[in-house]
Amino acid sequence: MPRTNDPGRTVSSRLLEVLFAFSSDHPCLSVADLTRMTGMSRATVRRLVLELVSVGALQRDDSGRYTVGLRLWQLGTLAPLTESLRTLAQPFLEDLYTALQQHVQLAVLEGQEAVIIERLSAPGALPLASHVGGRQPLHCCGVGKVLLSHADQELIDKVLSGPLRRYTDRTVVDPVELRSQMAACRRTGTAIVRGEFTDDADSVATRIMDAEGRVVAALSVVVRAGSVKPHATLPSVVTSGLALSRMLGWRPARSPTASAL
Amino acid sequence: MPRTNDPGRTVSSRLLEVLFAFSSDHPCLSVADLTRMTGMSRATVRRLVLELVSVGALQRDDSGRYTVGLRLWQLGTLAPLTESLRTLAQPFLEDLYTALQQHVQLAVLEGQEAVIIERLSAPGALPLASHVGGRQPLHCCGVGKVLLSHADQELIDKVLSGPLRRYTDRTVVDPVELRSQMAACRRTGTAIVRGEFTDDADSVATRIMDAEGRVVAALSVVVRAGSVKPHATLPSVVTSGLALSRMLGWRPARSPTASAL
Repeated sequence: MPRTNDPGRTVSSRLLEVLFAFSSDHPCLSVADLTRMTGMSRATVRRLVLELVSVGALQRDDSGRYTVGLRLWQLGTLAPLTESLRTLAQPFLEDLYTALQQHVQLAVLEGQEAVIIERLSAPGALPLASHVGGRQPLHCCGVGKVLLSHADQELIDKVLSGPLRRYTDRTVVDPVELRSQMAACRRTGTAIVRGEFTDDADSVATRIMDAEGRVVAALSVVVRAGSVKPHATLPSVVTSGLALSRMLGWRPARSPTASAL
Repeated sequence: MPRTNDPGRTVSSRLLEVLFAFSSDHPCLSVADLTRMTGMSRATVRRLVLELVSVGALQRDDSGRYTVGLRLWQLGTLAPLTESLRTLAQPFLEDLYTALQQHVQLAVLEGQEAVIIERLSAPGALPLASHVGGRQPLHCCGVGKVLLSHADQELIDKVLSGPLRRYTDRTVVDPVELRSQMAACRRTGTAIVRGEFTDDADSVATRIMDAEGRVVAALSVVVRAGSVKPHATLPSVVTSGLALSRMLGWRPARSPTASAL
């Protein structure tokens, strides 16, 4: 594998390191920032940045710093389950949004976190910590609990045995209690979470399934804590989730009685 | 610059070549496809693909082929003027969509094309050629004419002197007529286009401006040709565009009379 002077790092891994240094915490970086963050030489960083700019993966802003480029955004829209799921989900999100007038969001599992891939927010709705493209912990938010409970046993064990951050006084971090929540969530396909991620937010979430019955996403509404009874919201969230799952080819398993009719 | 055996291509440029081989026409590619498309050796392609998979820029699908990964989508959401503009635009797009029940879309200039960064479509609306993240020609669609007419003179000259594809019988490809359209579009900030990109679609577009008065995007509605009178749609499109521009900090220039009041 071709290597530069710095042993252990390939040229291509350096390029990716510069690219993935950009994050929602650092959306705009200078060559000096990137030099500090990656530990590469300024000359190397400058060369890699220019190469990324030349293909549109990065772009230079008015201040001379760099941001992610529009061509990279376009490339990202090709990721399966994002644009197609977002597009399919749009009418269902809109209907829920119309009915509830707060936040409606769709998330998928990525590594050990939930990634918000779409959100509709009413003007004046509760301010939320994360944005579209942002991440949320699996153990203490609605979409997270739904995604985690339907994940491989290996991931469940890993998350529940790892350090579990206590975001609020109400965050459940006891693995035994979480395992019991996971079991209930697998049974019902839903999660109701009150003030576990931020004090002021309750969320009501449900699973989204594909034609093979796999859980590919989670849908939730997030409301101001105490503003509505979560159980009153649940049926509309569940029906929207099932409708979206049907769009993905999912069909309810027929009971023996039903198939005998 | 470090080079591999193949003269003229750096290792990092090869990595980007593999990554940008993915497109809306080719969202899913095998190592064999990539080998053919890039002209690199199969071993090189395989190594670069594995490197891209290891950081989540690509992912392997069930068939063993590769697609763009979710982490790249997340990175793309950091591009300025996409996620932020999409989020700001959402209520305005929804209102227009509610009022008109067809397609409402938002586009920005990228190179010599318009890129659709957001779209709301009614179920049963006219099927459209391009998707979110897709591209449209500048000379013959509503958002394209608005973006081109407000671009640098250099870009206008380049596009109008280049080959202009005739998509339908009604596509205007005469540079003189196009220049006259550009001038009108700069004056009014709007474009009405009938059947120039596809026979069955009319579009009504307006400019979106930022605090400095720069045109940063274009908003349009696309309706079935002949279904509504474009001029009847224009006021709602223009008011939505001005409202969104105000959200971006734009304010109308005061006339001497108005400021004297």
